[in-house]
Amino acid sequence: MGSDRLLVIGAGPAGLEAARLAASLGSQVLVVEKRDVAGGMPIHENYAALTHGFRDAGEAMSELISAATGHPNVELRTATEVTAVDGSVGDFSVTLSTGTGDETVDAGAIILATGFQHFDPGRETQQYGYYEFPDVITLADAEAMLKANNFVRPSTGEPPERVAFIQCVGSRDRQIGNEFCSKVCCGISSKQAIEVRQQVPDARVFIFYIDMRMYGYWENEIYWPAQEEYRVNYVKGIVTEILSKNGRLLVRGEDTTMGRPMEVPMDVVVLAVGMEPSLGTRKMAEMLGVATNKYGYIETPHGELDTVSTSVPGVFAVGAATGPADLDDSISSAGAAAAKAVALLRGAEVTV
Amino acid sequence: MGSDRLLVIGAGPAGLEAARLAASLGSQVLVVEKRDVAGGMPIHENYAALTHGFRDAGEAMSELISAATGHPNVELRTATEVTAVDGSVGDFSVTLSTGTGDETVDAGAIILATGFQHFDPGRETQQYGYYEFPDVITLADAEAMLKANNFVRPSTGEPPERVAFIQCVGSRDRQIGNEFCSKVCCGISSKQAIEVRQQVPDARVFIFYIDMRMYGYWENEIYWPAQEEYRVNYVKGIVTEILSKNGRLLVRGEDTTMGRPMEVPMDVVVLAVGMEPSLGTRKMAEMLGVATNKYGYIETPHGELDTVSTSVPGVFAVGAATGPADLDDSISSAGAAAAKAVALLRGAEVTV
Repeated sequence: MGSDRLLVIGAGPAGLEAARLAASLGSQVLVVEKRDVAGGMPIHENYAALTHGFRDAGEAMSELISAATGHPNVELRTATEVTAVDGSVGDFSVTLSTGTGDETVDAGAIILATGFQHFDPGRETQQYGYYEFPDVITLADAEAMLKANNFVRPSTGEPPERVAFIQCVGSRDRQIGNEFCSKVCCGISSKQAIEVRQQVPDARVFIFYIDMRMYGYWENEIYWPAQEEYRVNYVKGIVTEILSKNGRLLVRGEDTTMGRPMEVPMDVVVLAVGMEPSLGTRKMAEMLGVATNKYGYIETPHGELDTVSTSVPGVFAVGAATGPADLDDSISSAGAAAAKAVALLRGAEVTV
Repeated sequence: MGSDRLLVIGAGPAGLEAARLAASLGSQVLVVEKRDVAGGMPIHENYAALTHGFRDAGEAMSELISAATGHPNVELRTATEVTAVDGSVGDFSVTLSTGTGDETVDAGAIILATGFQHFDPGRETQQYGYYEFPDVITLADAEAMLKANNFVRPSTGEPPERVAFIQCVGSRDRQIGNEFCSKVCCGISSKQAIEVRQQVPDARVFIFYIDMRMYGYWENEIYWPAQEEYRVNYVKGIVTEILSKNGRLLVRGEDTTMGRPMEVPMDVVVLAVGMEPSLGTRKMAEMLGVATNKYGYIETPHGELDTVSTSVPGVFAVGAATGPADLDDSISSAGAAAAKAVALLRGAEVTV
């Protein structure tokens, strides 16, 4: 018995890349995606440009989708959910459900590419008024406006004069239980700040931060140009409250570098919401019995020398299903998991 | 004609992982390492524990070395340099030189895992006195002392009472031409600060930083415990000068949060030196004709959706050969490159 098919759950960047590479290595790959279309968050959330390369997200994802689905070894099923899993490494039995019924397929290995969801800024951070003020938006809302080349004050439809980004909304926060850093929000906010300045050249843009985590090349590719070329104003500070006053937003907090309270009017406030494990990640982890950490992300218990193996033999996890991840992380880990899964399907030992 | 052998240049974490996975996928792999032993920087520089998991570096690397060299498809040649490369994808001809002579081997694809070197803190940063004061050391020097469980003032051999880490030495610095962030130094300094407190419980430890880039889980795994459990003192500040006074070091600069000058005595100062491309990375890039960026790192010109392909078909680059990288990055990109190289050797198209 046994199966040499690889099942990839999730058709975002990581799932597509894993599928494409495993197929290129000769495996039969079935990709299951619960949404109606492939492409993951960059497509679902209408990302404008990728971080860090500023490449058009739709175009880049189209290429990746074509590369994966165009491969004869890859079968993609959208609008399909995994509703049960039995068996173990080499011989999993997986129930797939669609609107029209259930089907059981076999798989020798499984890659979880079920990703993240954005922190809901209504949860326990009501001081930012996301559900109260239309001009308080999230990074995802801003992406969609930037993609449409229509970055405006939602309340008026007019271009904003003053835009603020507030970092670490739902991250680095013990009160809500997310002590981790979401890794990408500093870079994405800075990328968006540049795009706002490109699309609305008269707008002044502020980023209120604790630490600007512009690691590696994000520093020279995004952070320096944001400051020098696009005159984005970075303010080390803590925002405690957002109010509405005279038709504008009022951002209150403390400028920690200047050591003084601040109260500044803004037209649009973008909340840099962090990452949390998606519902799909939580569900699949439970269904497959893979260990998760206290945040609900899938654990890769072998440490930094094995970034994709989970606690269950034959089940790998990639991208943001294991924790905050940028696109480079997601693509690299997808490749690593493809290599390990295919090797495993051929009988190799792949865990250090 | 043509060759189905994979050549991996460099036997550090990334090279070993790439070799092991490509071998597990059925390829014949030759790993060439110019040093006398495999293991890369963690072995060569006597790393104590890995960041982020605090696992013993020697033990972890031994396992990885065994996994790679124990595979029947992997041949490792140490004390061997690549001195010439001819041909192109599918049919490279590579000259290997050892003390006893030259040999030419064929390879269908090449993975560059030639890594980084630490920034030399004597170069253009003489104000820190690395070559002047024995008690001014680097992260690498500190690792070796921590590994030996003998963290002392080099000038006296006694345990220090006050230890300071200075971040961004050789990084985020236009004057020396390294505008990038070296990504790992914040995490490694914080890991070492914890280890210093464990080994020398009476020592007070300070970290002077611009931004603490404790991305992802480094925040909750290292940064929070460093502050709460180990009482490491983080000071947002700029150090401008280190002097010797009354047998101690005097650290001068500005505490930017308090907005005032600071002048604090220290027994040991650890310079958090950044990454630069290794000599091997520069040499191999030139020999193979792969494009590099202005810092000398190997470019991966296809962006975030292809983290390992270089400008030359059939040549991949992994780990810190392409820029600042943590161990997770190196291991993931090694897996991705193994998958792509093996697929390429079998005739697949692997670049989006």
